[in-house]
Amino acid sequence: MQYLQNIKSPKDIKQMKVPELKQLAQEIRQELIQVVSQNGGHLAPNLGVVELTLALHMVFDTPDDKIVWDVGHQAYVHKLLTGRYEQFHTVRTHGGLSGFPKRSESEHDAFGAGHSSTSISAAVGLAKARDLRGEKSNVIAVIGDGALTGGMPYEAMLNAGNNKSNLIVILNDNEMSIDPNVGGMAEYLSRARSNPSYNKSKEEVEDLLKKIPAIGDKMLKAADKLKDSLKYMLVPGVLFEELGFSYYGPVNGHDLSALMTVLENVKNMNSPVLVHVVTRKGNGYGPAEKNPDLFHGVGAFDIATGQVKNKSAVPTYTSVFGKTLTALGKEDDRIVGITAAMGKGTGINLFQEQFPQRTIDVGIAEEHAVTMAAAMALDGYKPVVAIYSTFLQRAYDQVLHDVALQNAPVVFCLDRAGIVGDDGPTHHGLFDFSYLRHIPGMVCMAPKDENELRHMLNSALKYNRPVSLRYPRGAGLGVSIEEPVQELPLGKAEVLKQGSRVTLLAIGSMVEVAKQAAEKIEAELGFAPTVINARFVKPLDEETILAHAENSELLVTMEEHMLEGGFGSAVLELLNQNSMDSRRVVRIGIGDEFVPHGKTELLKQLAGLDADSVVAKVKEKLK
Amino acid sequence: MQYLQNIKSPKDIKQMKVPELKQLAQEIRQELIQVVSQNGGHLAPNLGVVELTLALHMVFDTPDDKIVWDVGHQAYVHKLLTGRYEQFHTVRTHGGLSGFPKRSESEHDAFGAGHSSTSISAAVGLAKARDLRGEKSNVIAVIGDGALTGGMPYEAMLNAGNNKSNLIVILNDNEMSIDPNVGGMAEYLSRARSNPSYNKSKEEVEDLLKKIPAIGDKMLKAADKLKDSLKYMLVPGVLFEELGFSYYGPVNGHDLSALMTVLENVKNMNSPVLVHVVTRKGNGYGPAEKNPDLFHGVGAFDIATGQVKNKSAVPTYTSVFGKTLTALGKEDDRIVGITAAMGKGTGINLFQEQFPQRTIDVGIAEEHAVTMAAAMALDGYKPVVAIYSTFLQRAYDQVLHDVALQNAPVVFCLDRAGIVGDDGPTHHGLFDFSYLRHIPGMVCMAPKDENELRHMLNSALKYNRPVSLRYPRGAGLGVSIEEPVQELPLGKAEVLKQGSRVTLLAIGSMVEVAKQAAEKIEAELGFAPTVINARFVKPLDEETILAHAENSELLVTMEEHMLEGGFGSAVLELLNQNSMDSRRVVRIGIGDEFVPHGKTELLKQLAGLDADSVVAKVKEKLK
Repeated sequence: MQYLQNIKSPKDIKQMKVPELKQLAQEIRQELIQVVSQNGGHLAPNLGVVELTLALHMVFDTPDDKIVWDVGHQAYVHKLLTGRYEQFHTVRTHGGLSGFPKRSESEHDAFGAGHSSTSISAAVGLAKARDLRGEKSNVIAVIGDGALTGGMPYEAMLNAGNNKSNLIVILNDNEMSIDPNVGGMAEYLSRARSNPSYNKSKEEVEDLLKKIPAIGDKMLKAADKLKDSLKYMLVPGVLFEELGFSYYGPVNGHDLSALMTVLENVKNMNSPVLVHVVTRKGNGYGPAEKNPDLFHGVGAFDIATGQVKNKSAVPTYTSVFGKTLTALGKEDDRIVGITAAMGKGTGINLFQEQFPQRTIDVGIAEEHAVTMAAAMALDGYKPVVAIYSTFLQRAYDQVLHDVALQNAPVVFCLDRAGIVGDDGPTHHGLFDFSYLRHIPGMVCMAPKDENELRHMLNSALKYNRPVSLRYPRGAGLGVSIEEPVQELPLGKAEVLKQGSRVTLLAIGSMVEVAKQAAEKIEAELGFAPTVINARFVKPLDEETILAHAENSELLVTMEEHMLEGGFGSAVLELLNQNSMDSRRVVRIGIGDEFVPHGKTELLKQLAGLDADSVVAKVKEKLK
Repeated sequence: MQYLQNIKSPKDIKQMKVPELKQLAQEIRQELIQVVSQNGGHLAPNLGVVELTLALHMVFDTPDDKIVWDVGHQAYVHKLLTGRYEQFHTVRTHGGLSGFPKRSESEHDAFGAGHSSTSISAAVGLAKARDLRGEKSNVIAVIGDGALTGGMPYEAMLNAGNNKSNLIVILNDNEMSIDPNVGGMAEYLSRARSNPSYNKSKEEVEDLLKKIPAIGDKMLKAADKLKDSLKYMLVPGVLFEELGFSYYGPVNGHDLSALMTVLENVKNMNSPVLVHVVTRKGNGYGPAEKNPDLFHGVGAFDIATGQVKNKSAVPTYTSVFGKTLTALGKEDDRIVGITAAMGKGTGINLFQEQFPQRTIDVGIAEEHAVTMAAAMALDGYKPVVAIYSTFLQRAYDQVLHDVALQNAPVVFCLDRAGIVGDDGPTHHGLFDFSYLRHIPGMVCMAPKDENELRHMLNSALKYNRPVSLRYPRGAGLGVSIEEPVQELPLGKAEVLKQGSRVTLLAIGSMVEVAKQAAEKIEAELGFAPTVINARFVKPLDEETILAHAENSELLVTMEEHMLEGGFGSAVLELLNQNSMDSRRVVRIGIGDEFVPHGKTELLKQLAGLDADSVVAKVKEKLK
């Protein structure tokens, strides 16, 4: 490393020449590959933006100028250039750097991220604040083509378009979000990329026009007839221009000089500008170039071979979901699989292989996915919408207003529910019981293991009402798979072990913890507690829960979820409704704070969700 | 009425000629004005779509063809033509017709609505279901220009664009949503409207091109230079064409023949089509034409004069909010007012009159509003985001992920919280405590009256953290306004009356009910209960609540909100955390069902939220 370790702030690159910057780019790539091969992380997106990030920091001056990274998993290079090289080896580890931009980490991180499609809105806010202060500076949003399938950027562009104030949107177009992009935006950008001509700004064209008198009228008439073909052939950025942005591009995102030239051109402009930059995900590391999908977010891997280390032999919840949905799809051709750009992440891809016609990938557009699903459900289909718990937050209103209010039998499969680990607070799925449970008519359930997930999915499709089903990220418990798949009675819990004194009433991933805790309690305290797999947060199994509340010294509710408004809270409501003493209820779950990033097991332990913590709590309460 | 009373289904208009249809249109307008002048309702939007709705039902055959109305307040004419003339006088009354499309009302209502911008997503779902079944029929979404400032339609259009299947979007362009439209879409459509030329479909233009050899190359080169000016002058629909839709229009929305011609042209097309129809809100009724804003959603009025009846002399919460914000804005120039197309509805218009530079109307784009506000707050401003409780649901993820996670001091003012009356289930604001309370760091409060609203708004701006503040629709209690405005201590309740035996612990609008109930209890049972104004749902006043829980036979929580996950649930959690018996807690609130439409007082009574119901509950529990 000749340059990288000496870069303490973006100022340190300003005097560098292009050949030196190219050397620095190489060092950055080396560092990215080295650290991510150890810690895991978003490798391919960062390899794709090395030159773009360098060019941004050459041309603009953060923190006075402000860069907002959309989603934010592509901000590693930015971190390396903004004084965080020394700590970079800690990225995504507990107490170390976040894998996303974070305001508390650096004054160069203008706005935090994690969820998609928010950057232009944030940039508009920063630009308005700047304008109100009467300052001059640049606000830059960097957004991927995938994020442009979401609705928010259009809301933001419509709000900002035609303003007479600085706002620069960099479209980082790598032809994929996580899965290859689908739909109109992908086709649109592919047409745009196919045009090599450099696009002049609107002002230049208008100036030019004024200099050619007489041509006007004729041209206009002729062009009228040609407009459709013309615009597709010649005007790659017309969509953005229609939204009030001046379009520049496309620019080769790995050509430092070209990037700096175009950024210098748009710097300090007093109008909204969109710069279309074409990058290659994984650029500079063979395995990631070949398999950008795998290396989008990757675990620790071997640098020489690109082989991912420590892959669990136990099937993931995701794969069990995908296989089960496929099997069920063979029996019932009304089943439709819906994903929002997460076919592989959710396992919908397995269903898609068998049933391409019955699979819909809407792109990163959770809201549209949910309302579309509602309509299909009301029209006789059985849509299964597979969206991570944290991303379904984006469609809360659609679940309530379009699905539940019309009692549309949509099945929501919430992958990555609970603590997800290294990605941290923007990605933990810790709110779904609370944001779904109060919706009238909604069923909320969670399986104790991957085998029960199968039964629950099958059951959800039979209940003929809105159902949500949540399960954790990663490997299942390695339990055996029962055939045939069963139908679980709605709102019935499963008593796993009838014991005495204490009842451990657990939901989802916490059932396994409850079993472990029960063993420890038996060993340490000399009695075997009752263990119940609640299965349903809504409707609760009132009979079973009330009976055990009645007959236990302690009723311990256990959930990998926030305590406020969650499963334990539902149990308190039930007891209250039935005039039962809730002093014996102990609620295990997550207190009123955002959970940071780190290894899942560690975070669970810190939150008191491991068996030892449960046992300690039971001991304390029994005293 | 010569025709209207005989129309039992859309079939009954199919044989009518244009002059007869014009007569029918007149009868419909008469009926609309007559009924809305009695019941109140969305008059101007319906007067604007009389011819459009007639043309739709002339050309298409519902329920085989499916019409999805965006927002849905413009579906009265559709109701009159689809067998609901006899019941139309009951619209918006309890047990009568809904003011919105509703599947349970008619097979002609393909998809329910209430919130904005969902129609194209629903239409895409219906079209996909149709295609999977291999059927041929038309799916039509009717969406206003205002709704196009939201992000969802773009998600839907990007998903549907370039498909080889029927999908018709009618853009009902009346140049306003509720307030006159703002931002890029408004400017865009105004350019489009200024072009009278009828737009050929892409195929026709391509055919034409093929017939003119040689011209190609030259034209292309010349046109390249001209493209910017050209497209603004000649191609009104290019934005939609870029999204993969064939654009037709603009068409005069009050010219029945023209409408039928264009709809016949696009009928049964196997590709997505957008028809741009220009209508006039309030068309055919002078007062509504002059004041479409007032007659968007209007109370009972005098037909001859257009004067609204029974306007309360007591100021509304909305106006008190607007005035207070304006006063505070004079003291602190960091305060920024943000609205999503509801300047008048929220009272932000009052602030805007004084501080146009510090007011932002983003259009119907709640998600963008919230994330933009987060950025402004983190950059030193004090954004006050005023959005109805039910519409903030659309931005739940942004509140959590962009505001709370970054501890951005945004103040959310939730107007129309609680039961809103005639608009019904899509508009009641009954979920906000539940969807906000579990978000770490969020403050949730509600004032007992309009005077306390002032203090709360002032306080919220001082807490320097995310705060939500909810208050009811309509007139305040008529209390006097205290000057100067106060700062309320965070998380402190107000003991209004120290009594004995029973504590009525109420939040927001229920404080007044608690006071009434306390008087009745004293009169009927001979003791005076304690009455507490909780002020905060989060953080709760733990000390005050625990002390009264300890010393009361009954602790009655009272909220105009769902019980699940709400205020009472928070109190149960608090007691549980402190190992206190919650059997004495009685929770008053709304059970697990959607509340229908009707007069607010009636709905409250039916839900047990009136003083008599509270007294009855107390009596029952004291036994």
